[in-house]
Amino acid sequence: MKKISLLGATGSVGTQTLQVVREHPDQFAVSALSFGENVERALPLIHEFKPELVSVKDKSVAERIRKDVPGHVKIVYGLEGMIEAAAYPKSEMLVNSVLGSIGLEPTLAAIEAGKTIGLANKETLVTAGHLVMERAKKSGVAILPIDSEHSAIFQSLQGQDRKAVSRLILTASGGSFRDRTREELRNVTVEDALKHPNWSMGAKITIDSATLMNKGLEVIEAHWLFHMPYDRIDAVIHKESIVHSLVEYADHSLIAQLGLPSMLVPIQYALTYPKRLELKQTKRLNLWETGSLHFQKVDRQRFPCLSLAYEAGKAGGSMPAALNAANEEAVQGFLSGRISFLDIETLVESALENHQIIKDPNLKAIEETDRRTRAFVRSQIEKKS
Amino acid sequence: MKKISLLGATGSVGTQTLQVVREHPDQFAVSALSFGENVERALPLIHEFKPELVSVKDKSVAERIRKDVPGHVKIVYGLEGMIEAAAYPKSEMLVNSVLGSIGLEPTLAAIEAGKTIGLANKETLVTAGHLVMERAKKSGVAILPIDSEHSAIFQSLQGQDRKAVSRLILTASGGSFRDRTREELRNVTVEDALKHPNWSMGAKITIDSATLMNKGLEVIEAHWLFHMPYDRIDAVIHKESIVHSLVEYADHSLIAQLGLPSMLVPIQYALTYPKRLELKQTKRLNLWETGSLHFQKVDRQRFPCLSLAYEAGKAGGSMPAALNAANEEAVQGFLSGRISFLDIETLVESALENHQIIKDPNLKAIEETDRRTRAFVRSQIEKKS
Repeated sequence: MKKISLLGATGSVGTQTLQVVREHPDQFAVSALSFGENVERALPLIHEFKPELVSVKDKSVAERIRKDVPGHVKIVYGLEGMIEAAAYPKSEMLVNSVLGSIGLEPTLAAIEAGKTIGLANKETLVTAGHLVMERAKKSGVAILPIDSEHSAIFQSLQGQDRKAVSRLILTASGGSFRDRTREELRNVTVEDALKHPNWSMGAKITIDSATLMNKGLEVIEAHWLFHMPYDRIDAVIHKESIVHSLVEYADHSLIAQLGLPSMLVPIQYALTYPKRLELKQTKRLNLWETGSLHFQKVDRQRFPCLSLAYEAGKAGGSMPAALNAANEEAVQGFLSGRISFLDIETLVESALENHQIIKDPNLKAIEETDRRTRAFVRSQIEKKS
Repeated sequence: MKKISLLGATGSVGTQTLQVVREHPDQFAVSALSFGENVERALPLIHEFKPELVSVKDKSVAERIRKDVPGHVKIVYGLEGMIEAAAYPKSEMLVNSVLGSIGLEPTLAAIEAGKTIGLANKETLVTAGHLVMERAKKSGVAILPIDSEHSAIFQSLQGQDRKAVSRLILTASGGSFRDRTREELRNVTVEDALKHPNWSMGAKITIDSATLMNKGLEVIEAHWLFHMPYDRIDAVIHKESIVHSLVEYADHSLIAQLGLPSMLVPIQYALTYPKRLELKQTKRLNLWETGSLHFQKVDRQRFPCLSLAYEAGKAGGSMPAALNAANEEAVQGFLSGRISFLDIETLVESALENHQIIKDPNLKAIEETDRRTRAFVRSQIEKKS
């Protein structure tokens, strides 16, 4: 029985993680979980999965749920609470699916405590990949990726000659504006952007998918997860999202992982790794039913966010943290109707230009970068609106 | 330095094996090689790779080459000679790329002698998979497949949970008549059949590719190589021959091996396994250059040879040996212009109907099956012509 700490239990990856646990009650249990303030969604989950510790957004949420949760359940809150949940002694594994840079410290705490990490929180590696991977190595802890692309790469590396890896190739659906010209991107609405062709995800990721910043962040994650230089990480547009990513080897052989789009597969793989279990809720892929798979080159002129991510990644230090913060604020600006879609890339670019890079930043420097970059982008947005 | 015995050195796989050796002179050497009677092609190879033992078709060929080969090179011939080459004491590995059922006994001898086997000879597993795999297991010898499909499956199984394999999916180019109707197949010529869209291969395999018998034989090989029941081996038409085959797991995740069509990759992988080396002579696959990959269901009405192979495989015992012998004779009949393309399937079918199955056949029973089936098919061809 593998005991799990789950951060972000009411989010998309969180609920799907619980689906996997639900399907294999003899294999997995949830010792601790966290959620923000979605009490309505969280309470039934607490009653169903019976964690011993629950962490919530703040004191007021903690007080609200106290009477609806069995007395023996410990309730904690805030970042402190999340860290306590992440490093909960009885858990073997942390599944971190919270959104945003708040996911970083709990991950580090769980690494310190020797937990296996199932990582769905992008920001952890984007902003602090150097710290996370260094500490994971020191603690002898495995970082198992929970998203379709990195899981695909991770699966395609198993049992292979690591020294012979020549290239990682991330597939990208291309998002909601895959087939639009630059001109057509000028006036797209929030509603247009939120229509993702293959995956049903949160608003932030859906916009990141449309700008291809999502792929850019994944490139940075892949750099850290798989110790791969940026010039050996490629992206290719693949609109069907069937080939989830590929690894190329020195003999020009490629290993790829495929399947119908479902987050359940990478989630379960992280939980069962290195084994695999049945997964009844997913459908079998028959390629003759799909018929054809399409691939096209990423047009970096049309999607400059991807180039910005490569640049930030190559610059290293605190630059990826600046990239991430600038992008979060810019996307927020777009979602709230204050800036246009193409302003996202302009704002990120000027934030990177404005950022004074800090080499090998510690946690405090990363937080400082985050705070300052957000302030900068917010002030730029205010000027525009 | 890995020392290799190479059977079938002047054939297509043989010469490509030597290309791989040539590219890595610090890694591989050829201790022993065999060829049939293509002296012109063989002599430069003998001078280049300097084997200590050379086996040829018969005594007359042996006498012909004696004066052109350095005096210290031992020259042997016939099946005896091939067995001596296969089990040559200084070799670590046998690469068996001879065509036809003559490849079986040398393989068994090499297994007995504890050599790693790189197997490009289909007939070995089709006719005697039960014997080969049993003896390989007993001797603790690895059987490494050398053809693109089984190598792809083998590569896609590395580091994965073997117990969780749910299906093997062999891709098939569909051969030269992929898009023809049954009606159009009626009058195809030998010349039509020999135009294979993706691979340049020998005449026999090219015809087998057009009838899909090639895929049928591969299904039987896959059954033995990967211990997989026939109802968990599938085939899919994939005209680009980029995805070389796939493995499906219990979680509906598929692992696949991809690359531009080249036999050099599976050959080198067998030689370097579990490592990989650079392979300069092959081209990198960029999926955006390929553009799209197509898949379609195999129409077993149009390609009954595939169904016949499944039936023979499921029947087991000596039936696959009968299938193979009948097919070889029928293809020969077609190539020599004595029967039509569609006669191939009819002849194979009647040979299977005519065959009295022998359970768990030994070498002698397999040879007997081969001999009798060939005689039966030949007599049928004579009746027709």
